[in-house]
Amino acid sequence: MNDCPFCAIAAGTIAADRIYEDEEVVAFRDINPQAPTHILVIPREHIASAAELTRAQDPLWGRVLHVAQQLAVSEDIDASGFRLVTNVGADAGQTVPHLHLHLLGGRAMSWPPG
Amino acid sequence: MNDCPFCAIAAGTIAADRIYEDEEVVAFRDINPQAPTHILVIPREHIASAAELTRAQDPLWGRVLHVAQQLAVSEDIDASGFRLVTNVGADAGQTVPHLHLHLLGGRAMSWPPG
Repeated sequence: MNDCPFCAIAAGTIAADRIYEDEEVVAFRDINPQAPTHILVIPREHIASAAELTRAQDPLWGRVLHVAQQLAVSEDIDASGFRLVTNVGADAGQTVPHLHLHLLGGRAMSWPPG
Repeated sequence: MNDCPFCAIAAGTIAADRIYEDEEVVAFRDINPQAPTHILVIPREHIASAAELTRAQDPLWGRVLHVAQQLAVSEDIDASGFRLVTNVGADAGQTVPHLHLHLLGGRAMSWPPG
């Protein structure tokens, strides 16, 4: 076992407001939401960040996106719009070293994106 | 011909500070940079946004990511970190209806991401 909190959420050993899961991907609400909809979509597999994704993992990277697309519909933000963000490393403020795609919507997002 | 500016950049009929291109993907510097490195990675194919990507396009979505990964290395922000952002629709402030992935780095990014 590693001590990654997102691996623990994927395994169910740490509680989270899970709203979607399948064999490859889990989605849950961000514990510090920055918008009316703020969901994290993660692969179950421990991958440190988007910088580590290989060509062989394109189907998994696609799966993460398609779950975000589905959740945008179920959250009713597909028409109003949404922002997808993933952070890599210190300058981006990546706080958990397990790849996660942020889905944010339900309000107008400003620019720059941080 | 459509009137999409990013299709025109991909075709070379509108100038841009292009830093990468291959048969599928083009990358160029954002005309209004929000960070020392601010690059847009686009597919040549006109796809309105990340909301429109299909399962069949996972290899293309992967290709966009892998070009961003390569550019993070060539821009020397792979170690310091970088943020990847894509906007869908009005609430996200999507200004050009052609899928583009923002690669931002070279400074500490704040939170929330807009």
